[in-house]
Amino acid sequence: MIPDEDFVQIQGVPGPTKEEVRCLVMCKARIASNDTVVDVGCGSGGLTLESARKARKVIALDKNPEALELTRQNLQKHGLTPKVQLVEGDALEVLEGIESFDTFLVGGSSGDLPFIIKQGYEKLNKHGRIVVTSILLETRVEAVDTLKELGMTPDVVEVTIAKGKITERGTMMLGRNPITIISAVK
Amino acid sequence: MIPDEDFVQIQGVPGPTKEEVRCLVMCKARIASNDTVVDVGCGSGGLTLESARKARKVIALDKNPEALELTRQNLQKHGLTPKVQLVEGDALEVLEGIESFDTFLVGGSSGDLPFIIKQGYEKLNKHGRIVVTSILLETRVEAVDTLKELGMTPDVVEVTIAKGKITERGTMMLGRNPITIISAVK
Amino acid sequence: MIPDEDFVQIQGVPGPTKEEVRCLVMCKARIASNDTVVDVGCGSGGLTLESARKARKVIALDKNPEALELTRQNLQKHGLTPKVQLVEGDALEVLEGIESFDTFLVGGSSGDLPFIIKQGYEKLNKHGRIVVTSILLETRVEAVDTLKELGMTPDVVEVTIAKGKITERGTMMLGRNPITIISAVK
Amino acid sequence: MIPDEDFVQIQGVPGPTKEEVRCLVMCKARIASNDTVVDVGCGSGGLTLESARKARKVIALDKNPEALELTRQNLQKHGLTPKVQLVEGDALEVLEGIESFDTFLVGGSSGDLPFIIKQGYEKLNKHGRIVVTSILLETRVEAVDTLKELGMTPDVVEVTIAKGKITERGTMMLGRNPITIISAVK
Repeated sequence: MIPDEDFVQIQGVPGPTKEEVRCLVMCKARIASNDTVVDVGCGSGGLTLESARKARKVIALDKNPEALELTRQNLQKHGLTPKVQLVEGDALEVLEGIESFDTFLVGGSSGDLPFIIKQGYEKLNKHGRIVVTSILLETRVEAVDTLKELGMTPDVVEVTIAKGKITERGTMMLGRNPITIISAVK
Repeated sequence: MIPDEDFVQIQGVPGPTKEEVRCLVMCKARIASNDTVVDVGCGSGGLTLESARKARKVIALDKNPEALELTRQNLQKHGLTPKVQLVEGDALEVLEGIESFDTFLVGGSSGDLPFIIKQGYEKLNKHGRIVVTSILLETRVEAVDTLKELGMTPDVVEVTIAKGKITERGTMMLGRNPITIISAVK
Repeated sequence: MIPDEDFVQIQGVPGPTKEEVRCLVMCKARIASNDTVVDVGCGSGGLTLESARKARKVIALDKNPEALELTRQNLQKHGLTPKVQLVEGDALEVLEGIESFDTFLVGGSSGDLPFIIKQGYEKLNKHGRIVVTSILLETRVEAVDTLKELGMTPDVVEVTIAKGKITERGTMMLGRNPITIISAVK
Repeated sequence: MIPDEDFVQIQGVPGPTKEEVRCLVMCKARIASNDTVVDVGCGSGGLTLESARKARKVIALDKNPEALELTRQNLQKHGLTPKVQLVEGDALEVLEGIESFDTFLVGGSSGDLPFIIKQGYEKLNKHGRIVVTSILLETRVEAVDTLKELGMTPDVVEVTIAKGKITERGTMMLGRNPITIISAVK
């Protein structure tokens, strides 16, 4: 994974998704070298960049132009620009215009998560994967419910990470916000 | 427990120990109404105040005069001043001058934890309790090793808390630093 | 708190709620000595017994007669029988027959949690407290949503505990299932 | 990662290391296709197999012949036998006979962790990586201390995972034992 500190960051755009969480999301996504990935709510570009290192093509969406600009800068910094198409706009609208893909990554805090998952599912190739990253109590349940409704069996993993900070007095354990990763195969 | 926000806070003194951790430390300490408690490294006074609500008498130590002043202010704010004796100084020296007590609370980041635990053990009444709160990897092991060396059986509990923040988009889970509570009975 | 191993246990009835979780639930419940507590889904009686040590009166409900019998045995073992009324039946029906109370404890895995919370709220005295303990993703959200709908501000705490097991090779950390405690004041 | 249930398991040999932990260890190990990996305490072969999928060669050690036999079966099941050399014996002795390698994986519960890390460090190529997986309080500190003594800067990550179990009543969160991953680059 790209180290957290190697991402350009700007105020107002959260992220990037921490190294350990990117690592787990990538494991669940099982991206193959010929895959097309759609990343909804790309933010700082953490998952976009990691996907771009593995996939043939990545389409990254965000409704916030600052997030897209930041993702663009991070792609450039890491030489991953050619593989990624950046699209500003509402996820539901943008998804309409995309033909099909193999992996569907969704940052879980969007307002209409169930609709986004359903529309992504429509365009998802057979054996494709949906991976939702959720930091809200509510979106975890929305993701699980929607995936079950679509006939999939969700894999649910709640991850709590503490990082050690080496200080003179010893190794201080600093807690991170817990994240839940909900994934399923079509 | 006293709500976190009801403590006076000043820059440079950490704390207070969060409500949920105070709650668990108090459970492990099992303070009775006739007990004397010694609180080493009182900081903002979180555990001092909770102990003062249960015990007959509390002796609170800190080598940082600002911490003692802050504890003094918090005791006054909550009407608990009469029960508590505040002592500035090095724990090992101060402990020499104390006769005996029933509960020994130790904030685990002090440099000479094993010595402090041993000296506290000497002055601890039969059936008294030692409760160490540790945020460093190293002090957890020091506490366990020292309590075992003293012939006690340590109870070790690592606690990771996430608090929900109610936002418009949902309940965001915010992680806290994990804390380990190591306790034993003489 | 009563040590976990001091509870009578039988196969088929889960519990008791672990010491550390009982401790946190009791902190959030803030039971006063003159209070009446209703405990919905008493199971092995963990929270019933802790409530009985603090409150004037506890009414413990469960639809499972084995759970009630087990709670009865645990109350007897700890000399707390006189304070507790055990009622077998569906929570919604039983609640109809109770006049009012100060603390409402709900084990979160019941099927109709929102209705139970609403009916409990009706009977709850002003300044009374609702404390829901949830082990399912879904009931956490149901509890938060219902408390918000009732105009209350839920306090949400997710607790992850690991207990140290002292072995010859060292202190092995054994994970417990995470539990979310959702509470609010009327 | 290979799904947990795709590993042959036998009583008496713990493991395999769970999918999510294997995933994080592999991220920290950053194995390149031309690398040689040494896996100390291979157990069921979880990390051996994942390493074999990425590296040129893996040397897997265990003092327990049953563990080696199980790793052998798992390698065969997943067609990874040719890349892996299995060696029974004490880690310190076996390491003497190995020339050099790029990645050093250590299961952290061994008795003489500091010596194993030091000897591995000797044989580790420049820019090589050491990754220790620890389930004991004590070995976490031993790993951090030894890596610091060797002039490295340890990266410390404590990971607590809960897996959702889909039941009729909802998604029950089941806790796993916390694991600490300590890694460093030479």
